[in-house]
Amino acid sequence: MLKAAIVGATGIVGQQFIVALKNHLWIEIGALAASERSAGRSYKEAITDAQSRALRWFCDEPPMEEVMAMSVQNAIEMDTSAIDIVFSAIESDQAKILEPKFAVDKAVISTASAFRYDDDVPILIPGINSDHARLLQVQRKSRGWKGFITPIPNCTTAGLAITLKPIYQAFGLNAAIMTSMQAMSGAGRSPGVIGLDILDNVIPFIPGEEEKVQRETQKILGNFEGTSISPARFNVSCTCTRVNVREGHTESVFASTQKACEVDDVARAMREFGGSAGDADLPSAPEHMIIVLEDPFRPQPRLDRDTEDGMTTVVGRIRKDTVLENGIKYLLVSHNTKMGAAKGAVLVAELLIRDGYIS
Amino acid sequence: MLKAAIVGATGIVGQQFIVALKNHLWIEIGALAASERSAGRSYKEAITDAQSRALRWFCDEPPMEEVMAMSVQNAIEMDTSAIDIVFSAIESDQAKILEPKFAVDKAVISTASAFRYDDDVPILIPGINSDHARLLQVQRKSRGWKGFITPIPNCTTAGLAITLKPIYQAFGLNAAIMTSMQAMSGAGRSPGVIGLDILDNVIPFIPGEEEKVQRETQKILGNFEGTSISPARFNVSCTCTRVNVREGHTESVFASTQKACEVDDVARAMREFGGSAGDADLPSAPEHMIIVLEDPFRPQPRLDRDTEDGMTTVVGRIRKDTVLENGIKYLLVSHNTKMGAAKGAVLVAELLIRDGYIS
Amino acid sequence: MLKAAIVGATGIVGQQFIVALKNHLWIEIGALAASERSAGRSYKEAITDAQSRALRWFCDEPPMEEVMAMSVQNAIEMDTSAIDIVFSAIESDQAKILEPKFAVDKAVISTASAFRYDDDVPILIPGINSDHARLLQVQRKSRGWKGFITPIPNCTTAGLAITLKPIYQAFGLNAAIMTSMQAMSGAGRSPGVIGLDILDNVIPFIPGEEEKVQRETQKILGNFEGTSISPARFNVSCTCTRVNVREGHTESVFASTQKACEVDDVARAMREFGGSAGDADLPSAPEHMIIVLEDPFRPQPRLDRDTEDGMTTVVGRIRKDTVLENGIKYLLVSHNTKMGAAKGAVLVAELLIRDGYIS
Amino acid sequence: MLKAAIVGATGIVGQQFIVALKNHLWIEIGALAASERSAGRSYKEAITDAQSRALRWFCDEPPMEEVMAMSVQNAIEMDTSAIDIVFSAIESDQAKILEPKFAVDKAVISTASAFRYDDDVPILIPGINSDHARLLQVQRKSRGWKGFITPIPNCTTAGLAITLKPIYQAFGLNAAIMTSMQAMSGAGRSPGVIGLDILDNVIPFIPGEEEKVQRETQKILGNFEGTSISPARFNVSCTCTRVNVREGHTESVFASTQKACEVDDVARAMREFGGSAGDADLPSAPEHMIIVLEDPFRPQPRLDRDTEDGMTTVVGRIRKDTVLENGIKYLLVSHNTKMGAAKGAVLVAELLIRDGYIS
Repeated sequence: MLKAAIVGATGIVGQQFIVALKNHLWIEIGALAASERSAGRSYKEAITDAQSRALRWFCDEPPMEEVMAMSVQNAIEMDTSAIDIVFSAIESDQAKILEPKFAVDKAVISTASAFRYDDDVPILIPGINSDHARLLQVQRKSRGWKGFITPIPNCTTAGLAITLKPIYQAFGLNAAIMTSMQAMSGAGRSPGVIGLDILDNVIPFIPGEEEKVQRETQKILGNFEGTSISPARFNVSCTCTRVNVREGHTESVFASTQKACEVDDVARAMREFGGSAGDADLPSAPEHMIIVLEDPFRPQPRLDRDTEDGMTTVVGRIRKDTVLENGIKYLLVSHNTKMGAAKGAVLVAELLIRDGYIS
Repeated sequence: MLKAAIVGATGIVGQQFIVALKNHLWIEIGALAASERSAGRSYKEAITDAQSRALRWFCDEPPMEEVMAMSVQNAIEMDTSAIDIVFSAIESDQAKILEPKFAVDKAVISTASAFRYDDDVPILIPGINSDHARLLQVQRKSRGWKGFITPIPNCTTAGLAITLKPIYQAFGLNAAIMTSMQAMSGAGRSPGVIGLDILDNVIPFIPGEEEKVQRETQKILGNFEGTSISPARFNVSCTCTRVNVREGHTESVFASTQKACEVDDVARAMREFGGSAGDADLPSAPEHMIIVLEDPFRPQPRLDRDTEDGMTTVVGRIRKDTVLENGIKYLLVSHNTKMGAAKGAVLVAELLIRDGYIS
Repeated sequence: MLKAAIVGATGIVGQQFIVALKNHLWIEIGALAASERSAGRSYKEAITDAQSRALRWFCDEPPMEEVMAMSVQNAIEMDTSAIDIVFSAIESDQAKILEPKFAVDKAVISTASAFRYDDDVPILIPGINSDHARLLQVQRKSRGWKGFITPIPNCTTAGLAITLKPIYQAFGLNAAIMTSMQAMSGAGRSPGVIGLDILDNVIPFIPGEEEKVQRETQKILGNFEGTSISPARFNVSCTCTRVNVREGHTESVFASTQKACEVDDVARAMREFGGSAGDADLPSAPEHMIIVLEDPFRPQPRLDRDTEDGMTTVVGRIRKDTVLENGIKYLLVSHNTKMGAAKGAVLVAELLIRDGYIS
Repeated sequence: MLKAAIVGATGIVGQQFIVALKNHLWIEIGALAASERSAGRSYKEAITDAQSRALRWFCDEPPMEEVMAMSVQNAIEMDTSAIDIVFSAIESDQAKILEPKFAVDKAVISTASAFRYDDDVPILIPGINSDHARLLQVQRKSRGWKGFITPIPNCTTAGLAITLKPIYQAFGLNAAIMTSMQAMSGAGRSPGVIGLDILDNVIPFIPGEEEKVQRETQKILGNFEGTSISPARFNVSCTCTRVNVREGHTESVFASTQKACEVDDVARAMREFGGSAGDADLPSAPEHMIIVLEDPFRPQPRLDRDTEDGMTTVVGRIRKDTVLENGIKYLLVSHNTKMGAAKGAVLVAELLIRDGYIS
């Protein structure tokens, strides 16, 4: 068993890491770290509200007893000597400082965006761009690290990149236009989305989100060319909104392909791609990267987000678009805090273990 | 004062007509008609649930006492002798049968889609395509009617057509791509959207909606050419979804213009257009057809739907789009049951009164 | 294996029966029945919307393939020759007619209220009043049936009766006052609660509900006295409301006990009762009838409804009440469509199988 | 015109004061104060998010231009020389420090609970206990102030005390039991209720709320006896919960009266009381303190909260209760941020101006 540290363990993403590692076949939790305020307390104590004694645990699955009893370390002084993997669930500004410290000799897999756009840093989605992991060798060399940093994509990028991949592969892509209807859990809880703001409402702006999705999609679908990734040469334009949904991002996609293709061709490319992911042997990998539904009222976030424990992107309503050249339009639902966050990061760890980057 | 009949008066759209005509300067309610079941009862009795005695009144504004006391007629036998205008708030299949009967000698203004796509039928939005009213002369002649039928657009078309108009006028349009996040009230109450289906959810399909929006937008922005309307020659492609919002459709628009234009140009075109609507003297007309907000978190349906009593389309987040040729993207909020339904129909009546089509 | 028929199989409660019987150890589905309209079609076809081809399946768990392939029978002509148990998921007015037909020679377990208040009909909650099953012998004799009808309680009664039982047993009860905040799923889908009505709202009335809860609680906690049940002699008064929650009824209870008791006494009585249910060996029985939480912010319907697959009633905030004699107040969450409906009925079947009433 | 300062002007309650004073006949805004951070900036600037430039204005009614231009003062250094009334919209811990400073020579009307339970401090609801204002003379003398502090009740107390008053007056009261379903706006926005917590949920605990309601109701309905208030001698017991509603608290009340009374008697007492409030001449007073609806599905927070601009308490479903002695039960809806907060405080100011306490 490899030993993982979870940094930012008391927050919502940190908690999702704890759940994602429950009964994991290859990885066990070796350390929990958070801010100084939590340091030295048991995890249970650290997530218990001092005044009301309420437990601040936010996942559906209950926390494991043995984790509750673990002592929380101060992240900036964490002892990593017995640790093989650091899962980072901290904010970007802290990540900028802490992650390079850990990466000196450890594998750091991060949900933060701090290093996503650096030239020597891949944004990995196993089954989509697993070969980009080779950029980690470049990173190690250039930065003089024994370890490395590899962030996962923004939660909104994940479903888009995954569903564009089989289209891109089969027909080429000129461009993609996307409007997202994002779940509240993507905003976290500090305070995240305020109830008064989202009831009976849509919030039409998520700062920074659109730029991330546009840039990351091109990088993820780009080519690894020996020492760097050459971004995919199609433009992505999006508008990201927040809706009154707990989990599961819905995205309305319009894509222009290079080769003409019919609705059935696209559905088949997605289905066959989904069924043959070369990385389906990884413990957290879904059986299908993509599932395509025929019911015109699907996908719906509440009904489809938990498909294959939230690791499958569910697609529906594939239709011709009449505006774009070889236009295709569809909707997708992707679980933003499973494939789009902690469990997606664990899947990356599994890929890197299998392929010898972590040992 | 002209006298109006409301057909389908007991339903939600019929009720909105009653509210839209409250204290109207030019029009008073002369008759209420519904199905045979309601015929002969007072309006109050007709909308009172027999068993629970609950009032089935669905508007925020309370119903007027004098309307509550009016007797409801059977729509298929309604006496229109003293009536000048028929506001039709019935379903399309009934509209197909009943509206032509009324149109023999009356002005029929309808929220149903039954006749929207007929060549001799305009879809009017005062301030946007007021000149299309001239097609009513053609309709009268071709159908041998003294009256006419003129439907208003689908509620989702309204905001899109209104905001595209100043862009089309100033810069020309190649195409528009739109994803809607529509309010529940657009689906009515029979049963409309079921609470269990929409809580914590997005419903990605509204049967027939996308085709309507695509076709109607082209017709509304088309050219009246003497005896017919030549549809605007830009394509519209959309994906229509339902979100957990009571009133107010949100639309994410990506448009390709013929002439290059900057964000500020588009904002100015919308603002100046909004401020100079030639039909702003009509009693129900908003002061501004369009309001453009600078706050990046706007427009929001809950905050912006009621602008100028729901007759103004509120726009925000105008940005460059990098996918379409001369691409521009923005969001809009439009009140689907005010400008997009009954009150929009009353505005059409006002236009036709002012311009001599109804007298 | 015993064979069960599900009558009303296409509705939401019927679907919950299908889920509750998935992989059941003692019972298998032998027949599905619904209205004439569905008769002769496969179950899959019967729940597929003819026009949109959408599947009208409303449970979280997907339907089993073998059930989808079963042929649906017309309920009024159903062949029960190979059937041992009839689970009835139909409306009360139909139940009045159909259930006695089946009861001539079959065990009928019903979610309908049609027969709940008949003197020779028990309302069973295994673990609470299992001994009331003996009334079925009286019923058989008085009605000349080989079978019987036994309804389960109203979904709102279940949690109240379950939590009052240990209090009643340990301290006696003078009275109980309850205000419910009920989930939408209790209203079904025809149309159930309309989205427009419940968004940003509370609906303060559920017709007939309060009378049911008051009467059923007294009957369930009553004494079986040889040939009849003598209702418990404490009054119950309630106000039932609907809130914007999908599943899980929340109830605010104020109870007056005969013997004085402290908060800790009540918590202990509930905990010990919960841990020692004599019927915990039944396959669908929860390990704990009641779980008492210390966190003052619990129970919450979203977090607690699924405890032990929705068969446990979760209690919190036990406090002294200063108004009633020996007053105690608490809140409970109970899963209205698991313990409160189909799965609760399956648990009743299990009790009656174990105790020899069904064979 | 009297001049008012609003302390805590940038928060949500402060904003509600600004709205409540718009076009006020007797009072104009003379100063705005907030924390040091806002001091010296225009109000508009102080409520504009520095990074996103979004306006943090939370009321439905837009802010007035002249208020936006006012300069915000530091509350602890506020110049009150030209001020007649201080409306305090700050948290209790700050109120403890700041309000006595202002009260040395100014009338302080507060939404904070800091001084509510002091013996020489009345909790005023005009029309309910206007005579308690006389306690302010005692307070002035005992504290050596020229001014005074008078808090309004907790928002949940208001509707309960108002509706119990006519019952208490006509029939006497033994006790009241209440379960509230409170709106999110009562929790404010820092962060108030988090969207993730309230979606598809009920939160069964609001720290401190129940104690406040119990104590304040007795004080408000108590007797002023020359130098102090003798609390009403009936017990109040409540359970306070939070539901997914924006504005408007719903309360389920069970009351025991001293004299027997019928449902119609209670309805009549409420109606007659509501129609004859001796303080209905105050500018912010509703025409009816209480409105009783017959429709069994009312009151509903969304439909009834705005009755008479949120100053009327709306009652429905008055029924006999079978548990309490002379038991009566009903539901009420009360606007927690109008009558229950800023506008209720302005009404208190009006009472005190009319009766000569402020000049």
